[in-house]
Amino acid sequence: MPKPILILNGPNLNKLGTRQPEIYGSTTLADVEAMCAAQAAELDLAIDFRQSNSEGELVTWIQEAITDASGIIINAGAYTHTSVAILDALNMFPGPVIELHISNPHRREPFRHHSYVTPAATAMICGVGVAGYPLAVEAVAGLIEKDVT
Amino acid sequence: MPKPILILNGPNLNKLGTRQPEIYGSTTLADVEAMCAAQAAELDLAIDFRQSNSEGELVTWIQEAITDASGIIINAGAYTHTSVAILDALNMFPGPVIELHISNPHRREPFRHHSYVTPAATAMICGVGVAGYPLAVEAVAGLIEKDVT
Amino acid sequence: MPKPILILNGPNLNKLGTRQPEIYGSTTLADVEAMCAAQAAELDLAIDFRQSNSEGELVTWIQEAITDASGIIINAGAYTHTSVAILDALNMFPGPVIELHISNPHRREPFRHHSYVTPAATAMICGVGVAGYPLAVEAVAGLIEKDVT
Amino acid sequence: MPKPILILNGPNLNKLGTRQPEIYGSTTLADVEAMCAAQAAELDLAIDFRQSNSEGELVTWIQEAITDASGIIINAGAYTHTSVAILDALNMFPGPVIELHISNPHRREPFRHHSYVTPAATAMICGVGVAGYPLAVEAVAGLIEKDVT
Amino acid sequence: MPKPILILNGPNLNKLGTRQPEIYGSTTLADVEAMCAAQAAELDLAIDFRQSNSEGELVTWIQEAITDASGIIINAGAYTHTSVAILDALNMFPGPVIELHISNPHRREPFRHHSYVTPAATAMICGVGVAGYPLAVEAVAGLIEKDVT
Amino acid sequence: MPKPILILNGPNLNKLGTRQPEIYGSTTLADVEAMCAAQAAELDLAIDFRQSNSEGELVTWIQEAITDASGIIINAGAYTHTSVAILDALNMFPGPVIELHISNPHRREPFRHHSYVTPAATAMICGVGVAGYPLAVEAVAGLIEKDVT
Amino acid sequence: MPKPILILNGPNLNKLGTRQPEIYGSTTLADVEAMCAAQAAELDLAIDFRQSNSEGELVTWIQEAITDASGIIINAGAYTHTSVAILDALNMFPGPVIELHISNPHRREPFRHHSYVTPAATAMICGVGVAGYPLAVEAVAGLIEKDVT
Amino acid sequence: MPKPILILNGPNLNKLGTRQPEIYGSTTLADVEAMCAAQAAELDLAIDFRQSNSEGELVTWIQEAITDASGIIINAGAYTHTSVAILDALNMFPGPVIELHISNPHRREPFRHHSYVTPAATAMICGVGVAGYPLAVEAVAGLIEKDVT
Amino acid sequence: MPKPILILNGPNLNKLGTRQPEIYGSTTLADVEAMCAAQAAELDLAIDFRQSNSEGELVTWIQEAITDASGIIINAGAYTHTSVAILDALNMFPGPVIELHISNPHRREPFRHHSYVTPAATAMICGVGVAGYPLAVEAVAGLIEKDVT
Amino acid sequence: MPKPILILNGPNLNKLGTRQPEIYGSTTLADVEAMCAAQAAELDLAIDFRQSNSEGELVTWIQEAITDASGIIINAGAYTHTSVAILDALNMFPGPVIELHISNPHRREPFRHHSYVTPAATAMICGVGVAGYPLAVEAVAGLIEKDVT
Amino acid sequence: MPKPILILNGPNLNKLGTRQPEIYGSTTLADVEAMCAAQAAELDLAIDFRQSNSEGELVTWIQEAITDASGIIINAGAYTHTSVAILDALNMFPGPVIELHISNPHRREPFRHHSYVTPAATAMICGVGVAGYPLAVEAVAGLIEKDVT
Amino acid sequence: MPKPILILNGPNLNKLGTRQPEIYGSTTLADVEAMCAAQAAELDLAIDFRQSNSEGELVTWIQEAITDASGIIINAGAYTHTSVAILDALNMFPGPVIELHISNPHRREPFRHHSYVTPAATAMICGVGVAGYPLAVEAVAGLIEKDVT
Repeated sequence: MPKPILILNGPNLNKLGTRQPEIYGSTTLADVEAMCAAQAAELDLAIDFRQSNSEGELVTWIQEAITDASGIIINAGAYTHTSVAILDALNMFPGPVIELHISNPHRREPFRHHSYVTPAATAMICGVGVAGYPLAVEAVAGLIEKDVT
Repeated sequence: MPKPILILNGPNLNKLGTRQPEIYGSTTLADVEAMCAAQAAELDLAIDFRQSNSEGELVTWIQEAITDASGIIINAGAYTHTSVAILDALNMFPGPVIELHISNPHRREPFRHHSYVTPAATAMICGVGVAGYPLAVEAVAGLIEKDVT
Repeated sequence: MPKPILILNGPNLNKLGTRQPEIYGSTTLADVEAMCAAQAAELDLAIDFRQSNSEGELVTWIQEAITDASGIIINAGAYTHTSVAILDALNMFPGPVIELHISNPHRREPFRHHSYVTPAATAMICGVGVAGYPLAVEAVAGLIEKDVT
Repeated sequence: MPKPILILNGPNLNKLGTRQPEIYGSTTLADVEAMCAAQAAELDLAIDFRQSNSEGELVTWIQEAITDASGIIINAGAYTHTSVAILDALNMFPGPVIELHISNPHRREPFRHHSYVTPAATAMICGVGVAGYPLAVEAVAGLIEKDVT
Repeated sequence: MPKPILILNGPNLNKLGTRQPEIYGSTTLADVEAMCAAQAAELDLAIDFRQSNSEGELVTWIQEAITDASGIIINAGAYTHTSVAILDALNMFPGPVIELHISNPHRREPFRHHSYVTPAATAMICGVGVAGYPLAVEAVAGLIEKDVT
Repeated sequence: MPKPILILNGPNLNKLGTRQPEIYGSTTLADVEAMCAAQAAELDLAIDFRQSNSEGELVTWIQEAITDASGIIINAGAYTHTSVAILDALNMFPGPVIELHISNPHRREPFRHHSYVTPAATAMICGVGVAGYPLAVEAVAGLIEKDVT
Repeated sequence: MPKPILILNGPNLNKLGTRQPEIYGSTTLADVEAMCAAQAAELDLAIDFRQSNSEGELVTWIQEAITDASGIIINAGAYTHTSVAILDALNMFPGPVIELHISNPHRREPFRHHSYVTPAATAMICGVGVAGYPLAVEAVAGLIEKDVT
Repeated sequence: MPKPILILNGPNLNKLGTRQPEIYGSTTLADVEAMCAAQAAELDLAIDFRQSNSEGELVTWIQEAITDASGIIINAGAYTHTSVAILDALNMFPGPVIELHISNPHRREPFRHHSYVTPAATAMICGVGVAGYPLAVEAVAGLIEKDVT
Repeated sequence: MPKPILILNGPNLNKLGTRQPEIYGSTTLADVEAMCAAQAAELDLAIDFRQSNSEGELVTWIQEAITDASGIIINAGAYTHTSVAILDALNMFPGPVIELHISNPHRREPFRHHSYVTPAATAMICGVGVAGYPLAVEAVAGLIEKDVT
Repeated sequence: MPKPILILNGPNLNKLGTRQPEIYGSTTLADVEAMCAAQAAELDLAIDFRQSNSEGELVTWIQEAITDASGIIINAGAYTHTSVAILDALNMFPGPVIELHISNPHRREPFRHHSYVTPAATAMICGVGVAGYPLAVEAVAGLIEKDVT
Repeated sequence: MPKPILILNGPNLNKLGTRQPEIYGSTTLADVEAMCAAQAAELDLAIDFRQSNSEGELVTWIQEAITDASGIIINAGAYTHTSVAILDALNMFPGPVIELHISNPHRREPFRHHSYVTPAATAMICGVGVAGYPLAVEAVAGLIEKDVT
Repeated sequence: MPKPILILNGPNLNKLGTRQPEIYGSTTLADVEAMCAAQAAELDLAIDFRQSNSEGELVTWIQEAITDASGIIINAGAYTHTSVAILDALNMFPGPVIELHISNPHRREPFRHHSYVTPAATAMICGVGVAGYPLAVEAVAGLIEKDVT
C-alpha cells in the first residue's frame, strides 16, 4: 500500500456541523473523515486526516508530508486567502495537491476570490458540499496513479 | 429515468487529442463522451454531450436545457472568460450547474483567472485532466439527488 | 412613409415572459413587438423587430440597416457589455440609435455598468420595464424628425 | 387627482437656452416646464417644477416630496456625479424616481460616467434632448400606476 | 448574571505601557483589564480578558465564546488587517461584537485602513485611547440588552 | 463651566425617526438631543446641537466653534464621503473631534468606506445606534479633560 | 473701462490671517482684496472680490459673471477637488479663467492633486503665497487683452 | 508550391470601401483580396482570403488552417479586443501569424489598445492603410521561409 | 546685486517660434530670454538663461546653481513627466524654485498631468503663454526677498 | 530625388549581432543599414541611418529632420517606453513616422506594452525581425507618396 | 561584549538544504548558523539564531529582543509579505534591523515584491544566496557601532 | 588577476558629501572609491569606479563592461526608477550585477519603490549607508567566484 493521503483542514473547520445544525446541516468533521476513509479504503488507500487553527502547524504538517504522504487534499479555510507560508510549503511537496472548498469561494466576498493555494494546486474541487471530500480522494488517487503534479 | 445531463463543450475543445498526440495525449472528445456515458450509466443516468465554437449556439442549447435537462456540466473554454450571454442563460437554468476545466485556469495567464460562468455555477472541478468529466457526472448526480442549485 | 425602425433584441430576450410567469410577468417578446408596432402605427411609422442569440447575426442586421432603416432601437442584452463588433457596426449607421434595457443595468453587478453600445447611442432608456419599448419608439421618431444622431 | 410629480433640476440648468441660443438652441427651462405641464395634463397629473444651484436645497425638496409627491423626475446636473446627500434623500422616497439627462453623460468625460443618483433611480432616460422631459413624465406616470419603485 | 464579555487583545498589546513609559504612558494591559472589570461590575457584568500573539489561539478563543460569552470586544492589533480566520470565527458568534482600537487606524499607514474585523463587527470605537475599553464595555452592554448583533 | 460641546448633524438626519417608525424606530433627532443634554449635564457640560442639509452652513458652524466650543461631535451624514470643505474647517479647530455614525459605514456600499472627516478626527464611534451619541459625549469629555486632539 | 475682474474665494478662505497669526501670518482676506484692487488700478481695471462657504452661491456668482465680468480669478479652496458644478459654471464663462492657490496643492495630500477647476482654467498660479493674487490680476489682464480663453 | 496563406478578416470588414467612398476611399475588400493575390503570385504563393462577422466561424477557419495553410494573416477587427477563443485557436497553429490592422489601434479609444491576438502573433503591421495587406504577405512569406513562428 | 536667477528650458523648447509661425506665433526662445532679462533688470536682478535637450546636462546645470544662483525658474518640457534625476537635483537647491509651463499641462494628455518637478517646486505658473516667463521672474524675486523655499 | 528617409535607432541597438552570434544571429546594425539602403535605392530614395544611446541626441536629430527628411523610421529601443521628449519632437515632424521593433514588444514584459512613440506614429511594424527594416522603407515610401501622416 | 545579534528565520527555512540537495545545494540552516557564528566571533560578537513556522512565536521573540539583543537580522520568509504583526514588533525594537532574503524577491511573483518588514528595516541584503548571512552580520555590526537604526 | 569590477554611480552622486557636510556627513564619492579599492585589493581584485549624470553614458559604459569587467556594482540613483535603457544594457552583461543604494528606497516616496535595475540584478544591498559599497565588493567577489549571475 502506498503512503497515505494527507487531508488537511484549516481554521474554523473544527466547528463544522456542530453549530445550528437545523440550518447548516449536522455533518461534522468526524463524519467527513469517515467518508474519506471509506472512499480511500475502496481504492486501497489510507488517509491521514487533520485540522488546525494555526498557520504554522499546517505548514509543519505539509513539510512532514514531503516524506510521509503520497498526495495532499487541503481545505485551507481562511488561510487560503492570506497564507504565503502554506503556498511555500506546498511548493516543496513532490506529489499531487488538490485544493478543496465546501462552498464556491468565487460566489462569496471578493477577498475570497484570490487563493494562495492555487499556484501550488494540481486541481481544485469546490461547491459540491462535503461530498467534495470523497470526490477529491478519488481524484487524487487518479493523479497519484498517473504521477501528475 | 430523470432527464439527461447536458454536457457542454465550448470553442476549440473539438480539437482535443487530435493534434500532436505524442505531446498532448490522444484522448479525443469522443473518448471523453464515452467516459461520461459509462459513468452516467453506472448511476442510471443519461447524458447529452455537445460541442460548439459558437457562443450563440451554446446560449441556445442552455435555454433548451431549461426544459430538457436535469443538470448541466459546462466546459465553456475561452467563452468562460468573455461571455456574459452564457452567464445569463445559465442563470435561467433551474438545476445544478458544474463548471469544468481540464487544466487549472488560475495557473495560466491572468485573463483566464476570471470566469463569467462561476456566478451561475453550483460547483467547479478543474485541473484533474479529462478525468474531471466522469467526476463531474458523479458530482452533478449527487447535487440533483439533493436538489442543490 | 419613411424607412422602418429596426428594433434589435440580443441573447436570451427570446425567453422573455415564457419562464416562471408568476414571478417575472407574462409579457412575451411577441407582445412587446405588438406594443411597438401599435405605437409606431400611431406615428405613421413601420418597425422591423428581430431577436438573435448570435453576435455575428446582430452585426450583419445592423449593417443591413445602413440602407434599410431610419433608426435603431437596440436592447443588446449581454452583448451590451462585451461586443465591440456591435459598437463598430452601430458607428457606421447614419441615423439615431437608442440603447434600451428593461431593467436598470447600473443597479446590477458591476460588469453590467459598462456598455459598449453607449458610445454609438444617441440616447438611452432603461429601467422602465417593457414599457420602455414604446417610449423608445416615440423618442426615436422625434430624433429622426429633427435629424439628431 | 394624485399627488403631483416633483421635477427637480440641479445646478446651472437655470441657464438653459439663455446663452448663445444660435448654438445651443433657445428652449429655456420655463419652456421645458410648460412642455412637462402639458404632457402631465394629458395624463390628468400635476407637476411641481423646481431648480436650485444648492445641494442642500435639493436635499430638502426631496425630503418634502416623501409626503407631498407621487413620483420624482430628477436632472441633478453636476450633483449627479458628486452628491451622496441627494442619493440618501432619494433612498427615503417611497415612489418611483426617474434619472434624466438632456445629453448622454456616458459619451462625455469619464467623471460624468458615474452617477450617485442611479442606485436610487427606478429608471433613466438620457440623450433625447429636452424631449426627454415629457417622455419621463409619461414613464413616471406608468410606474406610479403599476406601483413600481 | 449573564455570560461574561470576552475582551480579546491581539499581537503586541502585551507590551502596552511597559516600554518607554515617559513617552507612551504607563497604563499597562493589566491596568486596562482592571478598568474594564470595574466598568463591568457597575453594570453587573463579568469580563474574560485575554491577550495572544497567535492568530490561531485568538480563533480558538472566539470559537469558545460561541457558547461561553454574551458579547465580544476585540482589539485585534495587527491581525485586524490580515486575518480572514478571525473574521470567519467572529461570523459564527451569535452576540454583539465591538471592534476596538486605541488609536485611529484610518490616520495611520494605508494598509491599516482596511479591517477584516469590520464586516463582523456590530460597532467600532477607536482613537479614544485606553479610555475606549470601558466605553466599549458600556456599549456592548447596551447592545446585549437590546439584542442587537 | 467650560465652553459647550458642538454636536453637528449633516444632511437627512433631520428625518431620523419620523418615517416608518414601525420599521426604523421612533427616536427622533430631538430625542437624541435630549439624550446628549442629559449625559452632558451629568458631566457638568453644556451642548450646542444642530442639523443642516447645507455643506456651507456646516462649514460656517465649525468655523464659529473655533472660538465658541471646547469639542466637536460630528455625524456628517453623506458629507462624510464628499466634503473636503468640512475637513478643512475641522482641521482649524483646536480641540478634540469625534466622528460619529449611527450605523457602521464600513458594512455598507464601498463609497461609504472612505471618510474625509477621519483625518481630522481624534476618535470615531460607529454602529452603536443612537446610543452612540451619549457615549461620544462621555468620550469627548474625557479627551477635553486630558487635552488630547 | 472694461467690465471688472471677478475674484472668487471658496470655503474657509474667510478665516485667512485671523487665526494664530504668529504662525500663519496676519494677512487677512481684506488685505488681499486691497492688494488686488491696487494692482488692478495700476492696470486701469476694476475688481469684484467675494468669498463664500456655499458651493451653490459660488455657482450663481460665476453664472452672473457671464454678463458682468471680463475675467475670473478663482481660489475655489476645498471645492477645487469636489465640485463639478463649479466646473460646469466656469465652462459657460466666455473670458479667461485663472485658477489660484496660495500653497501648492500638488505638495499636499493626494486628494488635493486633482482639480475640477483645471479643465475650465486658462492658466494656473499656485504656491506663491498671497502674492499670487496680484500676479493673477496682472496675468488675467494680459489674457483679456489678447483675448485668450 | 507550399500550402496557401490564410488571410482572415473579422466583423464589419465586409463593408470596406462601400459606404461614403468620397470620405473613406473606395478600395473594397475584393480589391484588397486582388492586391494580396498579386503580391502572393510574385512570390509564387497562393492565398485563401475570407471574411466573417461570426467569432465561431473565424475559430473554425483557424482550426482548419492547422492542416491547410502555411501562415495566417489576421485582421480580426473588433474581435481583436474581445476574443479569447480566437487566441486559443491561433495558439494551436504551427506556422507564423501576422496581426494586421488598417489603422493604428493604439491611437484610438483605450479599449482598442489591448489585443488578444498579440500573444499568438509572430509579428504585427498596422497603420499603413490597405497597403499593409501586401506588406503582410511579403512579411509572412519571409517568416515561412525562415521557419519563424 | 544678488546671484542671478537660473532660467532652465528643457527638450524641444529650442524650436519655440521657429516652425509654422503663422500658426504657433513667432516668439522665439531668444525673444523670451530678452523679456526675462528686461523684467529682471527692472527688479535689479540678473538672469542666466539656458536650454538643453539632454536630461544629464540639465541635472548638471541645477547642481551648479547650488552655489551660483539665487533662484531657479524651470520649464522642464517633457522631462517634467519622466525625470526623477531633475527632481533629485532640484531637491538639493537651497533657494526658491518655480515650475513653469507655457500651456496648462493638466488640460492635455493624462501622462502630462503628473510632474516630478512639483515636489521640489515652491510655486507653479502655467497656461499664461510666454507671458508666464516675466511673471515667474517677478514671483521668484518676491520669494527670494522673503526667503521662502 | 526627395529628401532622404531618417532611420533612427535608440539605445543598445549598436550591439546588434555582435554578442554571442551563435545564439542571436550575426546581422549587425551595419548590415541592417545596407539592407535599408538597397531597398531605398530600388525605390529611388536615399536614407540617413543613425544610432545613439542618448535621448537628447535622438531628440535633436528628430528636430533636424523637420527640414531635412521626408519620413522617419524609428526603433527607439528602450526609450519607446520612457521618453516623452522623443514623442514631443516627433509630433513636430510634418511627414509620416513608422514605429519599428525587431521583436513584438507586446509579447514581452508588461512595461514594454506601452509606447510613447505610438501617438506620433502613422504606422507600426514589429516582430518581423531585422526584415522589418526594409519593409518599413517600403511602407514609408508609400505613405510619403500618398502624403499620409 | 555587547548583547547578541538575534538572527530570525521564518517559515519553511528549516527545510533549507535538506531536500533534493543535488539541485538546491546542501547548505543547511545549521551550516548557516555556523557561518554566522564564525563571522560574529571575528567581530567579537555573539549571535542568537532561531527558526519558527509560527508568526506569533516570531513576534514574541522580537519582543524579547527589545531588552536582550543589540540588533536583528530577519529572513521572515513568507511572513515578509503578509505579517503586519512582525512589522509592529520590529517597530518597537530600538536597534538596527536588517531584512535578509536568500534570493531576490523582486525577481519572483508580484506578491513577493511587497514587504511588510521593509518599513522597519534599516537595511536590506538579498540575492547573495546564503553568503548574505555573514555579510548581514558584518553590516549589522557596523550599524550597531555607529548607532544607526 | 581577473578583469576589474565596474562600479557605476548615477546622477547626483557626484555631490555626495560636498554639500552641508555638518548634516549629511562628509564622505565624498572619492572617499567611497578609496574604500572600494581597499576592499578589492584585499581580495586581489581591481575596480573601475565611475559617475555620470547622463543615462546614455551609463548605458555605453555597461556595454563596454561586457568585454572589460567581471562584475558590476551599480547605484543608478534616480535612473533606477526610470531607465529601461540601463536595464536592457545590464541584461546583456554576462556576469553578476549588484544593485546598490545608500539609503533604503522602499522607505522613501512610492515612485522610488519600483526599480528597473532589479530584474537584471543578481543581488541588492541597500540602507547600509556608504558602508554598503565595500560590502558589495565582497559580495560580488563571491558571486564571481561561484559563477552566479
